[in-house]
Amino acid sequence: MKGVILAIAPEARLVDLSHEVAPFHVEQGAFVVAQAVPHFPEGTIHLVVVDPGVGSARRALVARGRRAFYVGPDNGVLGPLLALDGPATVHAIGTPDFLPEGRSATFHGRDVFAPAAAHLALGKPLDAFGPTVDEDLARPFAGPEETAAGWTGAVLHVDRFGNLITNLPNTLADRLSAVEIAGRRLDVVPNYGALARGEPGAVPGSVERIEVFVREGSARDLLGAGVGTPVVGLKVP
Amino acid sequence: MKGVILAIAPEARLVDLSHEVAPFHVEQGAFVVAQAVPHFPEGTIHLVVVDPGVGSARRALVARGRRAFYVGPDNGVLGPLLALDGPATVHAIGTPDFLPEGRSATFHGRDVFAPAAAHLALGKPLDAFGPTVDEDLARPFAGPEETAAGWTGAVLHVDRFGNLITNLPNTLADRLSAVEIAGRRLDVVPNYGALARGEPGAVPGSVERIEVFVREGSARDLLGAGVGTPVVGLKVP
Amino acid sequence: MKGVILAIAPEARLVDLSHEVAPFHVEQGAFVVAQAVPHFPEGTIHLVVVDPGVGSARRALVARGRRAFYVGPDNGVLGPLLALDGPATVHAIGTPDFLPEGRSATFHGRDVFAPAAAHLALGKPLDAFGPTVDEDLARPFAGPEETAAGWTGAVLHVDRFGNLITNLPNTLADRLSAVEIAGRRLDVVPNYGALARGEPGAVPGSVERIEVFVREGSARDLLGAGVGTPVVGLKVP
Repeated sequence: MKGVILAIAPEARLVDLSHEVAPFHVEQGAFVVAQAVPHFPEGTIHLVVVDPGVGSARRALVARGRRAFYVGPDNGVLGPLLALDGPATVHAIGTPDFLPEGRSATFHGRDVFAPAAAHLALGKPLDAFGPTVDEDLARPFAGPEETAAGWTGAVLHVDRFGNLITNLPNTLADRLSAVEIAGRRLDVVPNYGALARGEPGAVPGSVERIEVFVREGSARDLLGAGVGTPVVGLKVP
Repeated sequence: MKGVILAIAPEARLVDLSHEVAPFHVEQGAFVVAQAVPHFPEGTIHLVVVDPGVGSARRALVARGRRAFYVGPDNGVLGPLLALDGPATVHAIGTPDFLPEGRSATFHGRDVFAPAAAHLALGKPLDAFGPTVDEDLARPFAGPEETAAGWTGAVLHVDRFGNLITNLPNTLADRLSAVEIAGRRLDVVPNYGALARGEPGAVPGSVERIEVFVREGSARDLLGAGVGTPVVGLKVP
Repeated sequence: MKGVILAIAPEARLVDLSHEVAPFHVEQGAFVVAQAVPHFPEGTIHLVVVDPGVGSARRALVARGRRAFYVGPDNGVLGPLLALDGPATVHAIGTPDFLPEGRSATFHGRDVFAPAAAHLALGKPLDAFGPTVDEDLARPFAGPEETAAGWTGAVLHVDRFGNLITNLPNTLADRLSAVEIAGRRLDVVPNYGALARGEPGAVPGSVERIEVFVREGSARDLLGAGVGTPVVGLKVP
């Protein structure tokens, strides 16, 4: 993919956002991009190829939000990005130049999405790629559900340290007495250093979501948790 | 290695091709480069340091093919690349500037190959590095062998999804009734989406080789297969 | 972090030094940077975020040595770098522009260190970041201790091949009859190729430290060793 981009747009700056997304986890892929968008320069082109349906009939999309551009398959991976950075203009790639007959059935990252991203980098307008998509593809990340006892959510992402990023927003932190996950009840603390080495806890995280962590250890390993593990934030009584 | 290159050629664009090559697997290293060469810009310098014999008497090579340049040890890793991108001109690095006395015995990637690649990027001619190599070092990848029942080959590469890339060419796909690997008989399907989640199959791949995959899973894990695992393509009766 | 840097300093060249440092291993992180500094261009800015105490009261530092710049937390990770590249000038980040109120408690790499590195890349003087640090933070790597029988040291780093880089300097190699580690006594050989495949040994390494290796294998796996494993260099009698 990088070779394809550099052959079309030799001046493009390429940044690998993550090698931590579990294969085929569409929502986790969207999350990793979403947390990066506000910190990258305006006009950055985010190329998102979490694409388990490659080769099937799903569309290929290019989009422009308020801050950034997005390129990826029409499988939901762009939904949260368009919701966060909308209102967005979305086009389906359909022009034969950008959907070539000879594309492989298994690697549209290289054969469809990388060329589209490179041409966007050169300033090609969205119109050139294919027709406008009229339906609204924006879909916010699922938030936690409020119950009598608190908020019920889930783990959205596991980073390389084994920290578990949940979908409970940081703004809830002051209203929580504790977080429950994998059969454990954990305190919400202000930073990693507030606990002894090896102890688990929860902390308002750097992407505005509450994280479950182990001080100088791995919450994934200690708790046996992963993407999708349920999390409950308990209300201060 | 990147520091060495940037100290010599500050404008060089550096791309990591793969972190998936198993240590010391010369043929797999060659394969990963071979699949990238056609997609990178003409004149790209491919630096290939799969070098189990570092510090021994094996030569260090620089080469120019029709499309690209190659730098690496004389241990066979360049053979398939020279075969695909030939006829090539090959020189052995011998000039003291490029084979310094003080080089380490364990990291010629940093001390020999990276400086050579950087000087190639600056436009240094092959002559400057040392004498021409007259013997033909081009060696195509081993192909499958045809038998009465079909074609007998092997797995050349395992990617990060656990897909098994075989040495059976895509051009055989229409003549196969099935693929046998690790005691399983698998259908050849047009794309990943043709199977149910968790099911294994074979598909014409993106590098002109038939791949064995599991829909949204890992063929490496499900089948217990890896580089070198035998594969048989069965002829349509 | 890369997005933050590119938003401030669009022309910055970014190089990932390593993804092999074990989380929270401050000394290993310092070692990985130390081995790279002499090979990167003069004036390179080394951004070192091994930061288990993020969010606590430890200071954030910017420093200029004889060859390079350094940015990182005041937790010891810069000590060996300042010792090798000193005498150095060190400032504590304290200016509100560089220690913003709204920084996260868990990711100063993104919120404090990356912006500082980007502004250094633009030529901002050290004075602009905060007050000079007067105490001497330089702390050389712990060396081996000499005993009657030889030198007692430890493994400093494990690379992706499973090679064990010790703190015994290469300059001792001629005075050693063998190296002891994990209950094994290993010969010191001139290069990897001096042993048969699968055999373990020790070799003067590429970063001026004796390495324990297995020919075309992993010393980490064969010996069950890792960062901190004791190593003894036995004197030639």
